[in-house]
Amino acid sequence: MEALLGPVAAAHGALVDSHTASGRVMWALLEELFPICRSITGHGVRQTLDILGRNIPLTLHSFPTGMQCFDWVIPDEWNIRSAVLKDEQGTNLVDFAANNLHVLGYSPPVEGWFSLAELKPHLFSLPEQRDAIPYMTNYYRPNWGFCLRHKDLVALQEGRYYVKIDSSLTPGELILGEAFLPGTSADEILISCYICHPSMANDSLSGVVLAAQLFSEIQHCNRRFGYRFVFAPETIGVIAYLSRFGERLKRHVVAGLVATCVGDAGAFNYKQTRNGSAPLDRIVNNALAHSSAAYRIRPFWPMGSDERQYCSPGFDLPVGSLMRSVYGEFSQYHNSLDNLDFVTETALAESLAMYLRVFEALEENRVYRRTHPECEPCLGRRGLYPDLNAQGARDLEIQRRMWILNLADGQNTLIDMAERIGCGLLDLVPSVRVLSEAGLISQI
Amino acid sequence: MEALLGPVAAAHGALVDSHTASGRVMWALLEELFPICRSITGHGVRQTLDILGRNIPLTLHSFPTGMQCFDWVIPDEWNIRSAVLKDEQGTNLVDFAANNLHVLGYSPPVEGWFSLAELKPHLFSLPEQRDAIPYMTNYYRPNWGFCLRHKDLVALQEGRYYVKIDSSLTPGELILGEAFLPGTSADEILISCYICHPSMANDSLSGVVLAAQLFSEIQHCNRRFGYRFVFAPETIGVIAYLSRFGERLKRHVVAGLVATCVGDAGAFNYKQTRNGSAPLDRIVNNALAHSSAAYRIRPFWPMGSDERQYCSPGFDLPVGSLMRSVYGEFSQYHNSLDNLDFVTETALAESLAMYLRVFEALEENRVYRRTHPECEPCLGRRGLYPDLNAQGARDLEIQRRMWILNLADGQNTLIDMAERIGCGLLDLVPSVRVLSEAGLISQI
Amino acid sequence: MEALLGPVAAAHGALVDSHTASGRVMWALLEELFPICRSITGHGVRQTLDILGRNIPLTLHSFPTGMQCFDWVIPDEWNIRSAVLKDEQGTNLVDFAANNLHVLGYSPPVEGWFSLAELKPHLFSLPEQRDAIPYMTNYYRPNWGFCLRHKDLVALQEGRYYVKIDSSLTPGELILGEAFLPGTSADEILISCYICHPSMANDSLSGVVLAAQLFSEIQHCNRRFGYRFVFAPETIGVIAYLSRFGERLKRHVVAGLVATCVGDAGAFNYKQTRNGSAPLDRIVNNALAHSSAAYRIRPFWPMGSDERQYCSPGFDLPVGSLMRSVYGEFSQYHNSLDNLDFVTETALAESLAMYLRVFEALEENRVYRRTHPECEPCLGRRGLYPDLNAQGARDLEIQRRMWILNLADGQNTLIDMAERIGCGLLDLVPSVRVLSEAGLISQI
Repeated sequence: MEALLGPVAAAHGALVDSHTASGRVMWALLEELFPICRSITGHGVRQTLDILGRNIPLTLHSFPTGMQCFDWVIPDEWNIRSAVLKDEQGTNLVDFAANNLHVLGYSPPVEGWFSLAELKPHLFSLPEQRDAIPYMTNYYRPNWGFCLRHKDLVALQEGRYYVKIDSSLTPGELILGEAFLPGTSADEILISCYICHPSMANDSLSGVVLAAQLFSEIQHCNRRFGYRFVFAPETIGVIAYLSRFGERLKRHVVAGLVATCVGDAGAFNYKQTRNGSAPLDRIVNNALAHSSAAYRIRPFWPMGSDERQYCSPGFDLPVGSLMRSVYGEFSQYHNSLDNLDFVTETALAESLAMYLRVFEALEENRVYRRTHPECEPCLGRRGLYPDLNAQGARDLEIQRRMWILNLADGQNTLIDMAERIGCGLLDLVPSVRVLSEAGLISQI
Repeated sequence: MEALLGPVAAAHGALVDSHTASGRVMWALLEELFPICRSITGHGVRQTLDILGRNIPLTLHSFPTGMQCFDWVIPDEWNIRSAVLKDEQGTNLVDFAANNLHVLGYSPPVEGWFSLAELKPHLFSLPEQRDAIPYMTNYYRPNWGFCLRHKDLVALQEGRYYVKIDSSLTPGELILGEAFLPGTSADEILISCYICHPSMANDSLSGVVLAAQLFSEIQHCNRRFGYRFVFAPETIGVIAYLSRFGERLKRHVVAGLVATCVGDAGAFNYKQTRNGSAPLDRIVNNALAHSSAAYRIRPFWPMGSDERQYCSPGFDLPVGSLMRSVYGEFSQYHNSLDNLDFVTETALAESLAMYLRVFEALEENRVYRRTHPECEPCLGRRGLYPDLNAQGARDLEIQRRMWILNLADGQNTLIDMAERIGCGLLDLVPSVRVLSEAGLISQI
Repeated sequence: MEALLGPVAAAHGALVDSHTASGRVMWALLEELFPICRSITGHGVRQTLDILGRNIPLTLHSFPTGMQCFDWVIPDEWNIRSAVLKDEQGTNLVDFAANNLHVLGYSPPVEGWFSLAELKPHLFSLPEQRDAIPYMTNYYRPNWGFCLRHKDLVALQEGRYYVKIDSSLTPGELILGEAFLPGTSADEILISCYICHPSMANDSLSGVVLAAQLFSEIQHCNRRFGYRFVFAPETIGVIAYLSRFGERLKRHVVAGLVATCVGDAGAFNYKQTRNGSAPLDRIVNNALAHSSAAYRIRPFWPMGSDERQYCSPGFDLPVGSLMRSVYGEFSQYHNSLDNLDFVTETALAESLAMYLRVFEALEENRVYRRTHPECEPCLGRRGLYPDLNAQGARDLEIQRRMWILNLADGQNTLIDMAERIGCGLLDLVPSVRVLSEAGLISQI
């Protein structure tokens, strides 16, 4: 197999260079998607999929309200046009037009006057982050509500308040998008992101634009694996998707990543697969360990994003999540501070590069066997060893060749070799090429 | 299966509360048993079993002198009425009536006058603990002897001494007691203690009264496992027991503890089974680690008490020993300082509670399977998940439910789950109950 | 099986005492072999094998020039009589007679006058070790050259220089020697050393004299294993040997050591087998850990000496290397400072003793089974346990007996036992003997 990014950029340097431009593309898409009010259903999801569909040949899958998907039922479709909270003087205290986080997700329509006491159970704020609007939803037992800055909440006086939420909760559909880049084998790599969050930049949207850019770059590459992209509402969307396509995924998916929280400047965090020792886990660890990036490996836990579904016992897919800061662990999480200021082109580009390195390593992670396994081959005769015994015999490249020749026994994968040698898997690839071309080793 | 202690105390709190009273009961029994002169045979053993039999339906097993038990032969029965060492003035220098440790165990009868030089080979003391009477025995090559305080030994002057030991060594029997509480399965938990030590409180007796109290409490509980109690002389008694019943134990015993040294105020010490990775080992470790008690885990070693026999290669039973201070490691060990002052009601009650927690965890250590393993179940619909996504989603109870739902794949036992989650096994039980009652998981 | 060194020295003490004399014997042989100019072929190899053959019944194996051995071809035979580099005044600047390292190995014959510029590409020195003559070879693309001290190189002025190397490169043979001491089983231990280095004392020669001494001492001992000694030129010699006898080695070799760098005063270094967990690896580690010697365990790496060939994937033999300072890691490596001053009788004797301990431990590493595995045997009845329960029960020898009786379950080898007990394997042997003689355990 040629380098994953062969036709686009034969050398690794080119790959890295291309990421600055990729960062700009991702940031521009994120900026365009940011203002849309998304939820698990509704026009915001359709609009998001329309925009993504400009560059990605998405297949849309629809699940009608009331449909049973495993243990879940597709809820009514929620749409919202406007929402305001006014005081007796008619002053807008809270306005959906200013920030779509202001409305509790899945608020049913309401209009009327309320005393402060009646209103209070419908108001949500973050007492410890007085300037942030919280992101809250209530999909399955709808009740109307406003989310607002705590400083605004505590400023409310006794009096009457006018509430109008112009929303609808009616039978409709849950919709999601899927794209697929076939490989030469039937094995697939899954990239999953979620498109149900309203105006937040890092949680959800950064993963969406990363997935879109991965599609754009990988489509031009040689591929051993198929690459399957899922753009779905979190939880219910992926549950619906798995209820229809889960058995296919069980047959084909050899590795997967949930892409989210990849746009902030924090260190990398890799959340392992449920098993914790899948090839993916070892390859991500190897890619991070042999990069200059700060990182942390986190064993799987059953809270979080859609890895919860992929890693449920009925599927148990080797799906992890490669993030920067972890959801729930940064102060901007699920509030209005997770905005465009929190995400940078550079961080997106770095994350993209790390994802591509992981995929390239997965592609390269093959088993090799010595053509003639007895003793060493005579490298000198082939110009693959320094002539003079005292010169450069301990040169790094020679060491790699000797290691590969020793470990190419038809048992070791390239990640086995890299872990034993203590180097990056991709660092071995040039040496593997040289030895393959010399006919000394061959792929199994 | 209901909680082990269901009928007695449904809540864990009740269990703990009950232990103060249990501590008093154990201490009173220990006080009653303490003065009796026990050995591996003789009236002291019978008297001890009579007292235990008041509350426990003991089955007695007799092994006559001369009987071959594996590599061993049951020795003569030893009984003693009195023993004195006097000087020429007739002053009692050592008197069995004052402390039954004064006589070397299995001393044959003797009467006569001895010079100091003749006497000395028959006198034993602890030069480094001048105020303690050592506990010594000589079961298999009987020779008379006195044990005395070193300060008394060194005070002996040249002269003639009168010795009289009014004992008998005659064909008789070795006797031991057994009790059994059947469970709903054929699997058994073994609790073994030894009843051959004379007046010592922590080594031997504390384990005897703990075992007796375990019987009293467990008999009123629902039980998956049968609980087999063995009250036998150490070494020869357990060898005799195993020669008659060992094959049955091999078929049924899934866990066992040798109960001894459980009455002092030291930290807990768990001596692992020979294998070191039996479910018992993991469960005791988990119970200790998630208690507030100080503790230490000790790999198996082949010296010690009756675990030596249970863990011999011909049986290799999963039997460990849960102690406070370890035999041989405290200065009161095998001497007259191991007396009633060294053992406390509180320590006995704490040890009892820890034993009960271990047994409860063993009872609860089942395998669960999701009824429908695909994705998460919809907990919100069942009132098992907070309504609002931002409230309490990381609540400890929710995390436990999510973990259990993820790990209930028909492979993991509850101890597997607890170790992975990093919590106490028993802490998971309420969550397991909730999910079972909701029909989301079921026992295998 | 009797102790490996039974007939020679029944007690371990005698073994150790004998090593001072062995050190003198090894040093004398090393001194005799040192001046000879060896290479991978030629008279120096023959002369070396002649000397070794005085005391060892060597079988010689010849491989003619041009013969294909796996991927390699036996090169021409190289012989050299003299070589000089002179200035215009006829002064000898470099003379092979002074040190055989002065000529680049496999230099073809040359005679003529050269300008400094023409000469320079043929001169080799160590800029960072100005007083050392480097050891260099160029077996497979012959080109003439001189190796000299860097201080002499930089002193050369512009001018004309006379070069004469009186060597020959002609069809001949590669020759190597083999000796074998049969054991009672078909399993073999391999001891391999290389005889292709010119005047260097630690790298190569120390291993040669150690192997010769091992032969001398082991030939008089009882042996379970056969001991196979290979004295061959490095790399090409062992490749040739394996091309002829490799399949036999695969059937019989259960452990092997490449003997080199065993004469300096550095700490021991054990380079593990390719697998890293062979019985040999555990036994060497145990022998080192329970000696008073400083040591370090080094995982296998595919550079180094002939373990590269033995551990190639086509053979994958359990061959390691037990050295003092590791080749390539000491400043005297491959230069004229690796001379007789660098090697000591004491270090050679210590290394010999460690090799013998390893082989003795391999010989003793058997599986034992209790004759009657149930409970403990009655050691007291046999005089194998102290009479009085309080005396010496924790004595080290009693502990070992109890451990062995507990672990002799027909599964554990002696190294399994030693690792679990935390003692040296050989420390267990006397206890094993006592218990075997008492009929309590038996070999499987």
